[in-house]
This record gives sequence, C-alpha cells and structure tokens, in this order.
Amino acid sequence: MVDRVVAYYEAKEERVAALVSPLEVERILKARTGEGLCVSGAAMSEDAVMQSLEAVLETSVRTQHPLFLNQLYGESSAVSVGGEAALAVLNTNAHTYEVAPALTLVERAVVERVGRLVGWERVDGLTTSGGSMSNLYALHLARHAADPEVAKRGASGRSAPSCAFVSEDAHYSFLKASRVMGLGDDNLVAVSTDRASGAVDVDSLEAAIEKSRAEGRVPFFVGTTAGTTVRGGFDDLGAVSEVCARHGLWHHCDAAWGGPALLSESLRAAMRGVEACDSVALNFHKLLNVALPCALFVTRHPRSFGVNATHAPYLFQDEKPFADLDPGDKSIQCGRKADALKIWLAWRAEGDRGLARTVDACVDLARRAADKVRTHPRLDLVFEPTFANVCFRPSPRQIAALDDPDARARAARRLPPLVKREMHARGCALIGVTTHRYAGDAPFFRLVVAHGNSLEFSDLERTLDLIADISEEPALLAEALSQ
Amino acid sequence: MVDRVVAYYEAKEERVAALVSPLEVERILKARTGEGLCVSGAAMSEDAVMQSLEAVLETSVRTQHPLFLNQLYGESSAVSVGGEAALAVLNTNAHTYEVAPALTLVERAVVERVGRLVGWERVDGLTTSGGSMSNLYALHLARHAADPEVAKRGASGRSAPSCAFVSEDAHYSFLKASRVMGLGDDNLVAVSTDRASGAVDVDSLEAAIEKSRAEGRVPFFVGTTAGTTVRGGFDDLGAVSEVCARHGLWHHCDAAWGGPALLSESLRAAMRGVEACDSVALNFHKLLNVALPCALFVTRHPRSFGVNATHAPYLFQDEKPFADLDPGDKSIQCGRKADALKIWLAWRAEGDRGLARTVDACVDLARRAADKVRTHPRLDLVFEPTFANVCFRPSPRQIAALDDPDARARAARRLPPLVKREMHARGCALIGVTTHRYAGDAPFFRLVVAHGNSLEFSDLERTLDLIADISEEPALLAEALSQ
Repeated sequence: MVDRVVAYYEAKEERVAALVSPLEVERILKARTGEGLCVSGAAMSEDAVMQSLEAVLETSVRTQHPLFLNQLYGESSAVSVGGEAALAVLNTNAHTYEVAPALTLVERAVVERVGRLVGWERVDGLTTSGGSMSNLYALHLARHAADPEVAKRGASGRSAPSCAFVSEDAHYSFLKASRVMGLGDDNLVAVSTDRASGAVDVDSLEAAIEKSRAEGRVPFFVGTTAGTTVRGGFDDLGAVSEVCARHGLWHHCDAAWGGPALLSESLRAAMRGVEACDSVALNFHKLLNVALPCALFVTRHPRSFGVNATHAPYLFQDEKPFADLDPGDKSIQCGRKADALKIWLAWRAEGDRGLARTVDACVDLARRAADKVRTHPRLDLVFEPTFANVCFRPSPRQIAALDDPDARARAARRLPPLVKREMHARGCALIGVTTHRYAGDAPFFRLVVAHGNSLEFSDLERTLDLIADISEEPALLAEALSQ
Repeated sequence: MVDRVVAYYEAKEERVAALVSPLEVERILKARTGEGLCVSGAAMSEDAVMQSLEAVLETSVRTQHPLFLNQLYGESSAVSVGGEAALAVLNTNAHTYEVAPALTLVERAVVERVGRLVGWERVDGLTTSGGSMSNLYALHLARHAADPEVAKRGASGRSAPSCAFVSEDAHYSFLKASRVMGLGDDNLVAVSTDRASGAVDVDSLEAAIEKSRAEGRVPFFVGTTAGTTVRGGFDDLGAVSEVCARHGLWHHCDAAWGGPALLSESLRAAMRGVEACDSVALNFHKLLNVALPCALFVTRHPRSFGVNATHAPYLFQDEKPFADLDPGDKSIQCGRKADALKIWLAWRAEGDRGLARTVDACVDLARRAADKVRTHPRLDLVFEPTFANVCFRPSPRQIAALDDPDARARAARRLPPLVKREMHARGCALIGVTTHRYAGDAPFFRLVVAHGNSLEFSDLERTLDLIADISEEPALLAEALSQ
C-alpha cells in the first residue's frame, strides 16, 4: 500500500479533480472491489483492499496538483510525508516524555524557534489539530488569565458577560470557539475592516471595547488576523497591541495563514508588532507545504496553560524521570499527535531560506496574477492583493452589455459558481468562490497560491484566460442570463 | 525516508524503550547530524535530514513492541499505516465534499456502521482528534440541546449553573472540557463507583442529580464510561439511561476504550443498553490497532450538530454540487483530518470477525495475566479485571516481613515506581504505574493489553515474573526501604 501511495504522490497528473458524484464513487468502488462504500463487516481479500484504496485515490481531488488553488493548503512536501509516515509507525502520543521522548523534545524545539521568530524571550506552546483549535486555546487561556474563577465556578456564576473582539474578516473559528466556551455569539464582537487593506479599523476596535464596557460587559480578548481567509489582509498588530495594553486585554494573533511572512525579509514588515501579542496561531500545513495537519499555538505566558492541568495520576507522576517535560497537562486533549516532527524535519531540510523562498514565491505569483487580472479585458480584480490570495471575477462583455441592471446583477451573481463548476468538471483547476461585504452581492473567485515550489506563472496565466473564456461560452452564459 | 520508516516498522526489536534523557537525545542527534534538537534555521544535507529521522527513531519508544503495555494504545496495523500514508499524499480536509469526495463518503460509511453497531436507526458523527475531543463534543451538543440560548447569549446570562455528571473513574477529559466550556469544575459532579466492578453507582447518580437540582443547579448531562481508564470498568448503560430519561438528561457514553466490545459476541453484554444513549465516543486507535489518531463521535441526534454551523461563505455554498454532504459545519474545527479512511480500510481488511478476534484476544490475555497474578506468591491483584486492564502490585516478602507498619506502607508506596523505572531502563517492558482511591495509598501497575495480534501469553508471564524478581533485587529494595 505504501508503494502505491508513493507512486500516486510522484505521478504527474493532468486533471486536478473529477467532479464525481457519490453514486459514481459507489460505482467505481463496486466495480473494483465488488462492494460499495458501506462497511458490510465482511473481510475482503488483500487485493480488494488494495482496490479499495485505488478507488479512493481515483475519486479524490489531487491537492498536490499546482492548479489546486481552492484552499489555504495544497501540496505536502516529500520530507513532511516522510515525517507523517514516521509518526504512523512511531504511533504514540505527545502527552508524556516517557512515551515520546524525542517527539516531545522536537515539539519543544519548534515552539522555541517560533518564539524566537516572533521575538519573545519566553515561550510555550503545543501543536494542535488545526488553526481553529489554536484560536480556541487562545480564547480559553485568555479567559482564564482574566478570570481564573471561571474554570472552577463556571461562567454562569459571573453577573457580567465576558466579551471578545475580532475583525469582520476574522476566521469563523472564533465564532465556533465562542459557542463551545459558553461566551455566545453576542459576546464576540465583529469590528469593521478597512475597505482598501482588509485590516481591522483600530479606532472602531477601541470604540467597540469602550461601548461594551459601558454596556456592562467585560472585555478580555482581541483576536487579530495576519492573513485573513478571503483577502489575505493583515491587521496592524502593533497598533492593536497598544489598544490591548490600554484596556488590559489579551491580544491573540491568528497567523494561521500569514504567519510564514515572519520568515520572509520582504514580508516580515506586515507582522510588525507581533512581539507584543500574548499568543499566536501559526499553521505549517498551509503556505509551507507540510502534510496536514501541522498547526501550532504559542504564547509568551507559559503559566496560562495551567487552566488545562488535571494531574491525572495514571499519566503524570512526579517521580517519573523527566516528568517536568510532560506536555500533556497543557493540552485540552489527552492523546495528541506529535505533528511538530513534520515541520522540524522540513525546517532542517529547507532551512529558513528555503521556507522563505516558498513564501516569497507564493506571494510573488499572487501579485503577478493580480497584475494580469488588472489588465485583463474580461476579468475584474476585486481586492488589491496583500498576500497570496487573489480575488477577482469574470466580467464578460455579454453581461456588461445588458441594459437591465437587475438582469446584469443577477447574471453577475450566477456566473462565478457556474464557471467554477465547469472548471471543476473539466478537471483543469479548482478555485473557490465566495462573497465579501465589500464586494457587492455577486460572488467572486478567491484564488489561493499555496504551491510556491511547483506552480508556474504560465499555468496561472492560462488558468485565468480559461476562466475568462469559459465565462463567455454560450451555454454557460445562457444559464447565467436565464430568468 | 518512507523506505526507512517501513523497515523500522517491520523490524523486530528486543528492547521496548531506552530510558533516554534529553541530553542523550541531544548527543545522539549531534553525533549523527552535527546539530542538536534546536531549529537553527540552516538547511541541512539530505543525508543529515535522514540521520535526523534516524536519531528520532533510535531515541523513541517502540510502541509496536508487544511489551509496550503502558497506554490504551499500542501497535498500528499495516493497513492503517497504509491509510495514514494515503492521507498524507491526498493531503486534504474533510470539511467539504468538493475537496474530499471519497473521504467524506468513507467517513459517512464508518459513522453509519457504528450507528448500526450501537443499535440506532439514525446517526450522524465525525472523526475527532481524540477521545477528549469527542467528550467535549458530547458536552457541547448536550448543553445546546438543553439550552440553545447559550450559543447566542453565553452562559453568563443564565442565573442557574448547568451541571453534568460522570463517575469518579471517568476520564479527566470531562474536567478539561468543563473548563473550556465555562461550566467549571464545581459543575462537573463526580459520582462514586462500585468498589468491586468500577461501575458508577446508579443510586448515587440519581441522588446527586436530585441534590444538584435542589441546590438550584440545572442538570443536563450524564457521561458514562465503557472501559474506564485505570480499571477497565463498564458503567451500566441501560440503568443510567433510565435515570437520564426520568430526568430529561443527555446520556453520553465514553466508549473510547471499551467500545470495541460491541464487536465481540462474548463482550457485547457489557455494553447492554448502549442504544439508549444519546451519543457515544469510540476510538479505533486503541484496542483495534488503527494508527493514531482515529477517534469517532456519534450521536442519534443529527440536528444537534447545528450548534457548530456558521455558514462561512468561502467554504459552504448551497449552489455547490453535493453541498449537502459537506461535514464542515458540524465540526468545531475548520480543517479536519479524514482519519476515518484508516478504520474503513482496516474494517474491509479484517471484517467484523477479524476486529472481534483482536478484542477477544486482548481481553483473554488480560484475564490470563490476572489469573497468573492471583496465584503468584509475590504479586497482588488490585482489581478483578473486567476488560483488558490488569491492575496489580509487587509484594516482596522483605516488605511484608517489616514490623513497622509505617515503614511497610512507605516501602509499598516507593516500590512500584522504582520497579517500573528499572524495567524501563532495561527496555524489557513499559508498564504504567498509577493510584486509585479503592487501592490504598500505594501506587500499582496498570498493565494494558492492546496488542491482541502480537502479544504471546508466555511473554506476559515472563514479564510478570520479572517484575516480581526485580522487586526483590537488593539495591532496589534498599532504596524502597530507606528512610
């Protein structure tokens, strides 16, 4: 099986993805193995198991393809795939030094490196199962720092609700975390962003904090973003830190997407002020091509992890050799995969410079794509790019020429998903479609460059031209223009 | 690297683990690569990266070894390692059908299979990053079902605290989850267990619920355990379900460890009544030897996942083909690894019967080990085994012969960790040491059998004898007996 997987990884395929229905997956699986998706409980032959894997590979999206431009992740580097395989055979948990001596030390080394990059003298941290979990850690540790009684007595004992602040463009995981934590949607305040840059409006932030306080709520947290999900915008970390200092709030930076800018000489300025943050989330599985998942949460307040300590006697005993190195009591999990190995190996293989080259290449490709869109007669740039995201939409002459503004608007709304679907069905590229409050009603393409080492600009150019061409194909236009 | 990893996996090693200090890891790494653990930022040669991996393998614990008897997990089966490698090259997230068509369907198939095993007509579920996260989902969904306003307004708006109930032997993740959720330690009530069986005392549970209500708290959740962490005890799920029905509470069963009993004809009775539960946590990476992590949370209330929905427009659009199959809005994460592939492949390879054989073999080995302990002149059984956990302690004649009861008690407290450390240092077996309120002050060994397919009873016998022998070694005894 491993041989087959390696061959899949090394193969160069034309198509990014087939637009495959569940019925087709079922049919392909049945044809190969005699059984569909359902787990029947019968044991299969070795060959049928291999064919099951084959069917999964065949009906999956090829995220390793340079034209998978759909998400904030893409390929996994060879060294990180090797690291993942090592984790599967080491098959242990980063909860105690005893069962994971090398792996807990490797995690510690990665945490320390990131702490130095951020500019902190003290640091502690953990890999988590993703950026959403890192943001949950941030809110949780911050609430505990502000009000340690909650961990013991619960939030319902507090007369005034705690509240947190993020920008309108912050990741939706803050909202999910607010619900999990019993903060509630009402107590996660979304502050407006600057139309041009996508950065949080710092004056509005301070006004929102003061307003919440006047309403009897207790502000405790500001979550900024370095590299917003849709636009790739960077909040002004230094300015927000000043606001947080004035009001005594925890400042967490969600740098899951944009954090690798710290490695780049030309991009580091976008993270100016990050050293004043209290915690940072950073994902290595996004721009840096480490096999999913490889997400890190770091803080300059090591003791804040104390909220998670439960001192379970079956795992954590003081008499154990090197028990002080056990990371388990810092986590909200018990078992935890030692994902840090993947970035540790990748960092050794590529060095700061190699990683920086990847980041710079992605951002450079995105800038060139935006330049191409800007001058393209049938494409419109939606936002000036600030990172590796390119937001644009097709604007075919046939729609622009419509007299009826309602019909024009309707067609503009319908077109992008149709074009996307057609691209997907042909397997030529996969690019997401979304909306944004500063981009009118119509959806647009959000093209993400996360293949810094394999994507050629000529492929990107060809893809943009193809989007413009498909947008003018008669059948598709007819569907967009229909009542 | 993958070749090296496969060779490591296939090698048969004598030693389970070296007792290696951080300095030794550093020294071995430096000797092999010229650099220590620290991420210096310099790029290394390919050979040095390979040597880095080599040093990690060399200084790691060999959990694949049948005498790794330390945790509720052990080896990873070959088919699941293949599945993990496939996930690393497919490198995608189970958040949308679009980017993970086959993988989201595979997850669905596993969820449905487990739903049928439990005995439910309707089921929905997700793989999570571990059993702790599954228990967090349970508490979170249950609170939302009981009080949907919390998600919007937050817990602090509620005058009466919500409260949840688990047994004293429940996993500590319930406590961690209570803190994250703002319930607080005070509102997680630990109910006493039966001394003989380790099951929650159902009368005490009902009394605790009534007492909490009388105190003005709002009970909403009972978490039972099928296979407790230390003893392997099973709560009476049917009886607790009746209590929950009477009081209108969500009944979650943490079957992370014991759940595979559902597959075994002879053990299934221990799970009687599970079909009346509202949700279940089940880990395939424990007894069933699937590569870590492979944890599942299932519920018979599919709509309860609604609390996590945020409808992020960049991921979830109704016009997308098969958008109704997107699992992302059910999760508290954004990206989420498609771990279900590993158990799906393993289930096809081994069938119900193959998996059941593994479970039965573990439990049988544990019973035989307990029999051996029971009749051993220098070992004491601490609990009658109810699953694959064997709790025992050495009782050397030299300690029993001490006249001074204080000295006897002190020596008994000191001995097990010393013996464990010696076993660890010799690399002959790794077995955990813990305490329990029904086992006096002295720690004892908790031996866990999670290697149903590779562990020979003769090895287990030899290990038990070795523990008895080491316990009587003069140097070690002297340390235990010293003032």
